[in-house]
Amino acid sequence: MIIVLKQDSSEEQAAQVLESLGRLGLSATALPTSQNMLIAVLDDVRQLPSHLFSQLPFVERTIRVQPQSTLALKGAPLTLSFKNKIQIGNGQRPVVIAGPCSVEGQAQILHLAYKVKESGASMLRGGAYKPRTSPYDFQGLGKEGLKYLSEARQATGLPVVSEVMSAEQIEQAEPFIDMFQIGARNMYNYELLKEVGRSSRPVLLKRAMSATVAELLNAAEYIMLAGNLHVILCERGIRTFETCTRNTLDLGAVAALKSMTELPVIVDPSHATGRRDLVAPMARAAIACGADGLLIEVHDQPLQALSDGEQAVTSCQLKDII
Amino acid sequence: MIIVLKQDSSEEQAAQVLESLGRLGLSATALPTSQNMLIAVLDDVRQLPSHLFSQLPFVERTIRVQPQSTLALKGAPLTLSFKNKIQIGNGQRPVVIAGPCSVEGQAQILHLAYKVKESGASMLRGGAYKPRTSPYDFQGLGKEGLKYLSEARQATGLPVVSEVMSAEQIEQAEPFIDMFQIGARNMYNYELLKEVGRSSRPVLLKRAMSATVAELLNAAEYIMLAGNLHVILCERGIRTFETCTRNTLDLGAVAALKSMTELPVIVDPSHATGRRDLVAPMARAAIACGADGLLIEVHDQPLQALSDGEQAVTSCQLKDII
Amino acid sequence: MIIVLKQDSSEEQAAQVLESLGRLGLSATALPTSQNMLIAVLDDVRQLPSHLFSQLPFVERTIRVQPQSTLALKGAPLTLSFKNKIQIGNGQRPVVIAGPCSVEGQAQILHLAYKVKESGASMLRGGAYKPRTSPYDFQGLGKEGLKYLSEARQATGLPVVSEVMSAEQIEQAEPFIDMFQIGARNMYNYELLKEVGRSSRPVLLKRAMSATVAELLNAAEYIMLAGNLHVILCERGIRTFETCTRNTLDLGAVAALKSMTELPVIVDPSHATGRRDLVAPMARAAIACGADGLLIEVHDQPLQALSDGEQAVTSCQLKDII
Amino acid sequence: MIIVLKQDSSEEQAAQVLESLGRLGLSATALPTSQNMLIAVLDDVRQLPSHLFSQLPFVERTIRVQPQSTLALKGAPLTLSFKNKIQIGNGQRPVVIAGPCSVEGQAQILHLAYKVKESGASMLRGGAYKPRTSPYDFQGLGKEGLKYLSEARQATGLPVVSEVMSAEQIEQAEPFIDMFQIGARNMYNYELLKEVGRSSRPVLLKRAMSATVAELLNAAEYIMLAGNLHVILCERGIRTFETCTRNTLDLGAVAALKSMTELPVIVDPSHATGRRDLVAPMARAAIACGADGLLIEVHDQPLQALSDGEQAVTSCQLKDII
Repeated sequence: MIIVLKQDSSEEQAAQVLESLGRLGLSATALPTSQNMLIAVLDDVRQLPSHLFSQLPFVERTIRVQPQSTLALKGAPLTLSFKNKIQIGNGQRPVVIAGPCSVEGQAQILHLAYKVKESGASMLRGGAYKPRTSPYDFQGLGKEGLKYLSEARQATGLPVVSEVMSAEQIEQAEPFIDMFQIGARNMYNYELLKEVGRSSRPVLLKRAMSATVAELLNAAEYIMLAGNLHVILCERGIRTFETCTRNTLDLGAVAALKSMTELPVIVDPSHATGRRDLVAPMARAAIACGADGLLIEVHDQPLQALSDGEQAVTSCQLKDII
Repeated sequence: MIIVLKQDSSEEQAAQVLESLGRLGLSATALPTSQNMLIAVLDDVRQLPSHLFSQLPFVERTIRVQPQSTLALKGAPLTLSFKNKIQIGNGQRPVVIAGPCSVEGQAQILHLAYKVKESGASMLRGGAYKPRTSPYDFQGLGKEGLKYLSEARQATGLPVVSEVMSAEQIEQAEPFIDMFQIGARNMYNYELLKEVGRSSRPVLLKRAMSATVAELLNAAEYIMLAGNLHVILCERGIRTFETCTRNTLDLGAVAALKSMTELPVIVDPSHATGRRDLVAPMARAAIACGADGLLIEVHDQPLQALSDGEQAVTSCQLKDII
Repeated sequence: MIIVLKQDSSEEQAAQVLESLGRLGLSATALPTSQNMLIAVLDDVRQLPSHLFSQLPFVERTIRVQPQSTLALKGAPLTLSFKNKIQIGNGQRPVVIAGPCSVEGQAQILHLAYKVKESGASMLRGGAYKPRTSPYDFQGLGKEGLKYLSEARQATGLPVVSEVMSAEQIEQAEPFIDMFQIGARNMYNYELLKEVGRSSRPVLLKRAMSATVAELLNAAEYIMLAGNLHVILCERGIRTFETCTRNTLDLGAVAALKSMTELPVIVDPSHATGRRDLVAPMARAAIACGADGLLIEVHDQPLQALSDGEQAVTSCQLKDII
Repeated sequence: MIIVLKQDSSEEQAAQVLESLGRLGLSATALPTSQNMLIAVLDDVRQLPSHLFSQLPFVERTIRVQPQSTLALKGAPLTLSFKNKIQIGNGQRPVVIAGPCSVEGQAQILHLAYKVKESGASMLRGGAYKPRTSPYDFQGLGKEGLKYLSEARQATGLPVVSEVMSAEQIEQAEPFIDMFQIGARNMYNYELLKEVGRSSRPVLLKRAMSATVAELLNAAEYIMLAGNLHVILCERGIRTFETCTRNTLDLGAVAALKSMTELPVIVDPSHATGRRDLVAPMARAAIACGADGLLIEVHDQPLQALSDGEQAVTSCQLKDII
């Protein structure tokens, strides 16, 4: 860590800072440059709280040379066992997780689960609790949806992932599903992250629309620090000024993450583009740049979908993609 | 609402769409233009779910001419009564809510509460539960912090606002405080919005870093639809590419909101800039463009603050600002 | 085009608007909805100036249903002939354009040109005029650089592309190179676009950091309307809040452009990421989502490069990528 | 400047870097931390080109502690003399520059010039050359427009500012106007910046939609390094995801600039918001946060304007604002 002192700081003041750091057990050295006095902390400060440094006197700003998320950066690939063993990450064959945006009924999810299986995907997705921008839009079937998901899981042997948004939903969902999804809108919901961190179910953590890669890793760190080391990171598009796609898929972040951590990194081309016709090209691009898997929305009657129909591919198209 | 049909749609297909809309009880008309067939829905569809339209056949996209948040757009100014009556919004004298980022101890919050009162502010803020990007940073004193806040409230007569991040925290905090704060990181946490919507305490709702004005109004709509009409909107900076300030304070959004709704709109220049030296100019600018109040971080020893010390002004500076 | 009238507009006022449109020779129809009066223009207005509509009375806003760039949307693949014929676009084998950021000397560019050829690339790039954020940074060798480029072109048979930034540079560069590059910083420089539009050399047009896809197509329209139909579009990363890569490569825009126009679309993974280690994965992703080619920076001594060394791959790495 | 070496660098390699820096005449020191080897350069390197450092061996990245734009940071207020003396910056009464987006005719600009004078503004603006996103939109009257501007200048005694976009236009415009405007779309057009830098006329430099404050200062540095120290900076909104205003007015950047340089900083609330009804509140906010002046679009028949009519206020509204 580099601490930049205010421009008019004296050498005495630098000495005071060094002394304060010393009392914290940290070795450091002062560097008088032609403009500012700099203090370089030589020890590993990644797991120390930021206020230890910002509360030092005469400080203009601090520059962390290393990110704080040490557990996330040491993460590992994932093995999921239901009827079969699925390995995610670490150069394994990319995993495809597919299904409808929302569970809309018993028949719908069962039909789609079989189609998803036929197309070669290895996990089923489906939302029972839906975070919607407008309170007037469809909010999901709730517990009923979880039961339908669970029936489709038993029938097809496909493990299931579904989104949770509160402690209560975690408790409700746990018996029915194999993996929790934390949606983009809840990536900064640290209470929820700690809550899924206390579970033993793997967590699929989606990057928030406005989150940096560093913040995504910090969110994973919250889950892992609470005890749950089974995290999958998911890039699903960030919010920018461009409007020809719903969000801007940041595959550079996927490649960057793959160079930083062994946590599996998957990509959701459906939410990223919001356009059915761009799902296949972006799915190919995601795998080409190193993603460990895909999360794809499927609906055989996208025009009848109760949410996000514009971006769902049909099960035939899914087969082609895989 | 304008529904744009796919480019090769026939008049027969347009007729089918019109018929479907008719079955929903909606009057509409088809417009063959030189490029696309357009369908204009003539009725008020603001409170109808989006899937009713996206699930129609042959649709390329839909354009909502009116926003969906009807309650938020009909919102009203707020009156808060503790020892005195405070009126917020509607051309009243701007309200100043001030206090430390975090409650750090009994003496600290009591001292600051008196200073805040002396400086002329009319409400006290202080965080007991802190959402922090890194799990290694200070997470707040929790229930103990709430008690200290409550003591400072009784001693000074200043009503108190404090952030909550879960249903459990809402229950814990309710007896101690006058207003809930929903932080920027939780603006998309719809379960939490519904939860504070069931309370009768007013809610200070902060705009998420990546939220549009329309999404902020939709978040307010969630609270109001759950029964709680007492909402204050707060602009606190959005995330952009600029790095000379921590976030980019969007005062244009404040002026735009003031032209749309009578809900009070306040501004947090501390989080928006992240720089103590810019709090005063941006506070002046906020009031100049019509904001109904300010949320300002104060700390008399900002270098000893356990969080966000860089942006806190001293109580002397606060007095000058007011 | 949909024209939204102000909320309190009367039917008489709508009639006035219709009459004005009629005088312009445009057929239109009025649509009284429950909130606003809408006017739908039924004729093709893509090539009509915007002020024709915004200057109509009682107008709140206008919504163009179709983009204005009709030439760009009708664009065609490109054939380039120097010693060999190179076809770019339309499902041809992706073209690779490689070379150093800046021409730094006669020996450097000659050496790299041979290496680029050996590695299998089909065009040489190299900057003689360099747009640099700081005036203190290396500004390019100018005309001398163009001569070295031209020698390397003759020696290897590789056609050459190089950036121009003014009318004077266009004139200077024209005899020495095969294709002009308009850099991202000059995409909005409409005088320059018109100038290269008067040339017959093909133009490689880079998307500005803040340009939407629609604006990129409008920039191409400027060139094409001036007479030069030989345009290649190049995505090179947009500016967002993310800092782990220099820019955010927007491959969704590439796939979207491929669905809109037959103009060739290529990708520059070097400037997009600013990181040597991410060039290969993003090059693969670009091709996977349908890009017609790549623009890659190469330097065999990246640590000695006079500009942008951090993002240049070596000629060995280039060979691997191809 | 801090140079971060690659993670596995040895002390010997650090010694090599120090030696290389020594050969450049720069004193530096190595700092072995627990993760990386850091090299701190102690001399003033602001005016040295970046490649001197990035070309050193074993370097991971470099962190400039000080910005490079030294002339811009030492800038001075401006005095403009035509019939009266106008002082801009340095705590003087804010200057108001007003006029139409485009010069549309002799009568129009003369009428507006008188109105602008009457309302209390002290300079006239008007575009003769117009950068328009679409080539089909009105491109300005060119030299004819300049003559009309010049006549209005003589008649009213108001000095005039007008945009130039090429070397040729600079030459044409110089006899007719008092100040050049460099538009947001040309802020990165370094050849144009050098060209106006060779003139002695003051330059009103608008921030590009995607430019950081540091880049704006670097653009000013280009002009000043070419010999012209008379620069006014202008904030006119940046591009973000928000769409309720045309751009996002970044007043935090204005306050930050005022704390960095004595160059005058003015604000354009018309282009920033794109909405007539928000011009007044944002003008007030701009002055409240320390802006040295305003640039406001005025049109007495905004519905007949040939460009940007949505954002022009009438001369009556201008009077109220002033």
